Amino acid sequence: MQVRFEAAAGRTAPPGEIWIGDDAALVADSGGRPLLLATDLVVAGVHVDLDLCTVADLGFKAVMVTVSDLAAMGGRPDHLLVSVAAPPGTDLDGLGSGVAEAATATGCIVVGGDLSTAPVVVVSVAAVGSIPPGAEGEGENTIPPGQGVLTRSGARAGDSLFVTGPLGSSSAGLRILQAGISEEEAAKGFGSLVQAHRRPVARLAEGDTARLAGATAAIDVSDGLAADVRHLADASGVGIALDHVPVAMGATDDEALGGGEDYELIIATAGPDGLVAAFESAGLRVPIAIGRCTADPEERTLAGSDLPHLGWRHLFS
Amino acid sequence: MQVRFEAAAGRTAPPGEIWIGDDAALVADSGGRPLLLATDLVVAGVHVDLDLCTVADLGFKAVMVTVSDLAAMGGRPDHLLVSVAAPPGTDLDGLGSGVAEAATATGCIVVGGDLSTAPVVVVSVAAVGSIPPGAEGEGENTIPPGQGVLTRSGARAGDSLFVTGPLGSSSAGLRILQAGISEEEAAKGFGSLVQAHRRPVARLAEGDTARLAGATAAIDVSDGLAADVRHLADASGVGIALDHVPVAMGATDDEALGGGEDYELIIATAGPDGLVAAFESAGLRVPIAIGRCTADPEERTLAGSDLPHLGWRHLFS
Repeated sequence: MQVRFEAAAGRTAPPGEIWIGDDAALVADSGGRPLLLATDLVVAGVHVDLDLCTVADLGFKAVMVTVSDLAAMGGRPDHLLVSVAAPPGTDLDGLGSGVAEAATATGCIVVGGDLSTAPVVVVSVAAVGSIPPGAEGEGENTIPPGQGVLTRSGARAGDSLFVTGPLGSSSAGLRILQAGISEEEAAKGFGSLVQAHRRPVARLAEGDTARLAGATAAIDVSDGLAADVRHLADASGVGIALDHVPVAMGATDDEALGGGEDYELIIATAGPDGLVAAFESAGLRVPIAIGRCTADPEERTLAGSDLPHLGWRHLFS
Repeated sequence: MQVRFEAAAGRTAPPGEIWIGDDAALVADSGGRPLLLATDLVVAGVHVDLDLCTVADLGFKAVMVTVSDLAAMGGRPDHLLVSVAAPPGTDLDGLGSGVAEAATATGCIVVGGDLSTAPVVVVSVAAVGSIPPGAEGEGENTIPPGQGVLTRSGARAGDSLFVTGPLGSSSAGLRILQAGISEEEAAKGFGSLVQAHRRPVARLAEGDTARLAGATAAIDVSDGLAADVRHLADASGVGIALDHVPVAMGATDDEALGGGEDYELIIATAGPDGLVAAFESAGLRVPIAIGRCTADPEERTLAGSDLPHLGWRHLFS
């Protein structure tokens, strides 16, 4: 969800810039170079249950979900600001270590922050990113703002839809943790699902590869496939006909469709063969075809039936 | 307070960049241009009492205190990200209007955000800013990172110290509100103090002018003069001998020294006459001389006595 402060200020984005409404904002810096900006909040008891995850997991996740917004635009994170509100006694060193692990894993640095007391742990991450240069050296030096990034709104009727991996892992991992399965059991049979819940991974290489391969649109799966593919369709003004939803091993169909927090990317492209070839050539898992965009902007179907209205919900709200 | 995530990541700022430790971070963007980055949290019940201020005031303050960090570096804000965690039923439109007013007043735009539920209102603002060009057109196009900004650490023994206005207004305004004075009375006799508490002003023109006039160091008064002048002295490795503390009309001496949240700037300069002339020429209130930096890095005095240890404290913590 995004707060629409720009309406109150009576301002709209100039041509070439993207403000509120996509995964990240795209703006020109003082020299006209494109900057990607994204922010996300993670709140204990809403997004993360601290009886099932550590504050290090919470810090890690706060960074990854923010960076994922840049991945969905085909960008990369450069600098992070991390603000923490937490009750006295919170393990701030643990929280900081989770933040630092995620920053290191995504190739960016934490350059500032703020700290306050509060009744619950709230971590807010702001990421400042850029558009990596292309293979031939074109790219960040030559892309005018508004060009050369993936948006939610670029899909066209006839485009093929892909997802970068099977879905439902995070939601299944949360279910397993809520069922009280021991850490030892979890590590044996369900480790990857629990890990997917506690330590999600932003698909930076996938977003970059999709952008360079000429994909038309992308969004990350934060609310769940059913909800996020609707966001993409709404922004692009196209219909959606899904054939197939890839379900992660150990997850249910509902978790795959509505679980959310998987942070895989949904990608639309007019050149499906080129997309697959680009992923293979980059050594990435081959994206999974899930359907196509259609000319009827009202269409939202899965295997010919109405696409269910499922979506991730806050734990307690 | 700032969380030291960089220690966990084992990284330190390259020459010319400033990461955690100053009012704002100074980094190079992908094209080598300087970016200023700052973030602040405002938490209801900690920084703002919602029985005495509106959520619009809280939103306004969250933006201003973040922008003030850029003002203290001689920078300006360009883009904001605003994240809000709030209980159901919170007046988000009011909050957004306060945010938008502060953004408009400081010449920047809100380009993204996030929204979540939480037990208390928490607003986190991240500001991305730049260094305005100088009068002759030099400036942002030619300043290498690490040059041309005001820091906390540049003051030298012999420098004169100034503050951009009398202090204690915000703290006095809070005292008046806590005493239960009616809005009507407040508007008559104490309006400016109450306004200073509810609607602080970032001193952007003052920071810019000080930077262009060659000031050696600056910091904003967020924790209180006694605390913030210590921060500047600690970072610069100098002593501090204050002669005088300007007290706002209606404020007490303790409020001026320790009240905090005034967001005036403390400025050090080797050229006091030039600083005053630059402020006069810019049409700004003439900065008030408060003392000087000394060669004894342990010295912290006010009119020859020990500088009191006073500083702003959270409302409840």
